[in-house]
Amino acid sequence: MGWGDLGAFGEPSKETPNLDQMASEGMLFLDFYTANPLCSPSRAALLTGRLPVRNGFYTTNAHARNAYTPQDIVGGIPDSELLLPELLKKAGYINKIIGKWHLGHRPQFHPLKHGFDEWFGSPNCHFGPFDNRALPNIPVYRDWEMIGRYYEDFKIDLKTGEANLTQIYLQEALDFISKQQASQQPFFLYWAIDATHAPVYASKHFLGTSQRGLYGDAVREIDDSVGKILKHLQKLGISENTFVFFTSDNGAALISAPKQGGSNGRFLCGKQTTFEGGMREPAIAWWPGHIPAGGVSHQLGNVMDLFTTSLSLAGLQPPRDRQIDGIDLLPAILQGKLIDRPIFYYRGNEMMAVRVGLYKAHYWTWSNSWEEYSKGIDFCPGQNVSGVTTHTQEEHTTLPLLFHLGRDPGEKYPLSFASDEYQRAMEQISVVVQQHKVTMVPGEPQLNVCDKAVMNWSPPGCEKLGKCLKPPKSDPKKCFWPH
Amino acid sequence: MGWGDLGAFGEPSKETPNLDQMASEGMLFLDFYTANPLCSPSRAALLTGRLPVRNGFYTTNAHARNAYTPQDIVGGIPDSELLLPELLKKAGYINKIIGKWHLGHRPQFHPLKHGFDEWFGSPNCHFGPFDNRALPNIPVYRDWEMIGRYYEDFKIDLKTGEANLTQIYLQEALDFISKQQASQQPFFLYWAIDATHAPVYASKHFLGTSQRGLYGDAVREIDDSVGKILKHLQKLGISENTFVFFTSDNGAALISAPKQGGSNGRFLCGKQTTFEGGMREPAIAWWPGHIPAGGVSHQLGNVMDLFTTSLSLAGLQPPRDRQIDGIDLLPAILQGKLIDRPIFYYRGNEMMAVRVGLYKAHYWTWSNSWEEYSKGIDFCPGQNVSGVTTHTQEEHTTLPLLFHLGRDPGEKYPLSFASDEYQRAMEQISVVVQQHKVTMVPGEPQLNVCDKAVMNWSPPGCEKLGKCLKPPKSDPKKCFWPH
Repeated sequence: MGWGDLGAFGEPSKETPNLDQMASEGMLFLDFYTANPLCSPSRAALLTGRLPVRNGFYTTNAHARNAYTPQDIVGGIPDSELLLPELLKKAGYINKIIGKWHLGHRPQFHPLKHGFDEWFGSPNCHFGPFDNRALPNIPVYRDWEMIGRYYEDFKIDLKTGEANLTQIYLQEALDFISKQQASQQPFFLYWAIDATHAPVYASKHFLGTSQRGLYGDAVREIDDSVGKILKHLQKLGISENTFVFFTSDNGAALISAPKQGGSNGRFLCGKQTTFEGGMREPAIAWWPGHIPAGGVSHQLGNVMDLFTTSLSLAGLQPPRDRQIDGIDLLPAILQGKLIDRPIFYYRGNEMMAVRVGLYKAHYWTWSNSWEEYSKGIDFCPGQNVSGVTTHTQEEHTTLPLLFHLGRDPGEKYPLSFASDEYQRAMEQISVVVQQHKVTMVPGEPQLNVCDKAVMNWSPPGCEKLGKCLKPPKSDPKKCFWPH
Repeated sequence: MGWGDLGAFGEPSKETPNLDQMASEGMLFLDFYTANPLCSPSRAALLTGRLPVRNGFYTTNAHARNAYTPQDIVGGIPDSELLLPELLKKAGYINKIIGKWHLGHRPQFHPLKHGFDEWFGSPNCHFGPFDNRALPNIPVYRDWEMIGRYYEDFKIDLKTGEANLTQIYLQEALDFISKQQASQQPFFLYWAIDATHAPVYASKHFLGTSQRGLYGDAVREIDDSVGKILKHLQKLGISENTFVFFTSDNGAALISAPKQGGSNGRFLCGKQTTFEGGMREPAIAWWPGHIPAGGVSHQLGNVMDLFTTSLSLAGLQPPRDRQIDGIDLLPAILQGKLIDRPIFYYRGNEMMAVRVGLYKAHYWTWSNSWEEYSKGIDFCPGQNVSGVTTHTQEEHTTLPLLFHLGRDPGEKYPLSFASDEYQRAMEQISVVVQQHKVTMVPGEPQLNVCDKAVMNWSPPGCEKLGKCLKPPKSDPKKCFWPH
């Protein structure tokens, strides 16, 4: 989902009444970011509070490449990483993930090995259907074991876009919350729905109900579900004791537009890029009785902050034996403070850009390669900013391209190198970047090696269902990451 | 000002708290249009309820050209046109225009000859300063006579952007409202401020207060002023008896961005074009006690509707001896009804596009000429949609380019000509267009002839101020309209 997909963020159809109400009862973050312009690394960052380049969710196979966890990925979240649920456990929290995990699908990466107590969902994206020969269909898990596969037991009709998965995820959420309330146990629910990820889907009741087509139908169903979750918290009388945060793991995938892709508002490009459209996210904090209703914050925020903020809410300290990139947002949320901090935009282990205050400096620019672009793969459809949305990797490390995101949120007008404003801003930014680089200790890259043998052929529980498949011979290779 | 310039419409800095509050107390129109992608024709349409091609505010000098009322224009609003204030007068209304008139600056076009009782402002844009030899500085009027000139008596500092004009316009508005309330007379106030039109300006108190630079400062001052006007109505106890509508006369002029130009959100291009960015406008209706607070409407609306709606509010009928294009929006505003009506997008006397429901069909596409574009004049900076934002006038009358504005508000993905959806939509649209064309009787074009002798050399009142200038010899010519 993108920044511009919510009515509260200016989506012209204004079809998200529940999220808009959540914003009017809570706080809207207008300058909130994800840690990476795509899924797996962002989710790893969210749960570890650390940049992907630290927690290992990146590749060094080629320069500045986006990488994630497809079925043939060998790596995943390392045991050495401390995840939010592992830490919350120490404070008595029961932790559940509903939906897409995406931090590795092999047994050692299983969410229940990393702090979660319960899981309903899938380790990978819901791509398919596959033939179970070249590629197995993606499994859906309940806790430790698979309970079926997409397109077999969990239907997605690619023709009509119909699937009832969001409804299942919603019911799982409501049930989990009820159970925790009944047992008076604190809980952490990571509700990782994926209806707006291609192939986009919605349940029958929502199909055709949006001005925006199937994508809008999916947004409406998510919006409706969020409303039901919030109402459920209120009905159970625990809304004033439950902190809820809504955000996304990357900008809308414009490559899938208009049928399967959303909106990043007026921001440049989308998912896969380090322009604002790729990484600025819708974000709403909700906590009745604590967060002032109708608040708006310009605090520079990041999904990694949810790690630190959640620990703070649980009365815990972040780990001290490692660099944590997330900050505690509570002073911004509860007291309206503005905390000075930069935002880093990475592709692989390359820092492409940095935001300090309202200035954003691009040290590298790249949308995608000419080769990909010539095949019709376009991450900036209808947009073209000369020297910015480049199709060759352009290095600007000696003289970064500088934008003022207040006057120019669309990153169209680089400041003149000769201007005083450029000089002043870059002096400040250079210090931030230098400090970041000298203290940077990259983790072991997890997304370098691919092997068809590790795919979801025989996930735990497959034998009970008669759904075990025979893996091919192991043949580990460098993964190919085209962009 | 553009669709995307208000916080309520998703401007990322969210610096319009008063307009946003106006929206939350009133009704937000998300699908509201102006009648033309630039100033004079839109304002003529607003005040006559008629398309510019009917009321004469267009040119036939070249195909599909935008025209307005610069100083050397010979034409203006014809006496045969009935303006809103002329009609409201019959119901006892006192009418005032504050700000830019733009319907012709020669004596016969004076606003007080066309129904207004009072005027404070100027007939033309605040361009300048001029040398009073080749071009006279633009006069500022109080009622029948000029009281000074821009850059002489009414300062605009082009270096700092400082000018206190919005404050003067605000005070004029507050005073007028107070006077009418005291005398218990119904009133129509046309508050036509122009701080966001290049050269953009703001008063000292607002300079440097926005994230968005000078343009944002101007928006903030307008926002602040709107808030003060609404509060004034409330303080006087007449808010429940006063209908207020906020909108703009064209999309943000992206040619002036980023320093002097605003935002059209995610819509395509800006002022001067018939893409959504050129003609979809921010719009808010406010009438406490009558309009349900926090309402949102998808009614297709147009500035011309303010003519018909205002008459309806005053208990008057629109004239029956001519075609009126504006509709009465009260059923949409008060009862949430959706009235079926098309939106026409014109350049000159050419119908470039039409919107019916969520479909928009382009019969002609043109952003501007290659010649202009090669000089750096770009109405779609950073945007380029192949075959759509064309630099030659492209005719599509036999096979219009069709967009679904729900799925694709940015007009990036024309529907396939071969699709059933295209066929179905075009069948419906063709009927609307045919009906429009056969009943179209264009007015006498007013914007064809230019003459330096008619410029503001010696406006009424100049002799009292010693500010009369000698006009050159009359030399009428066809005006040159480059786009």
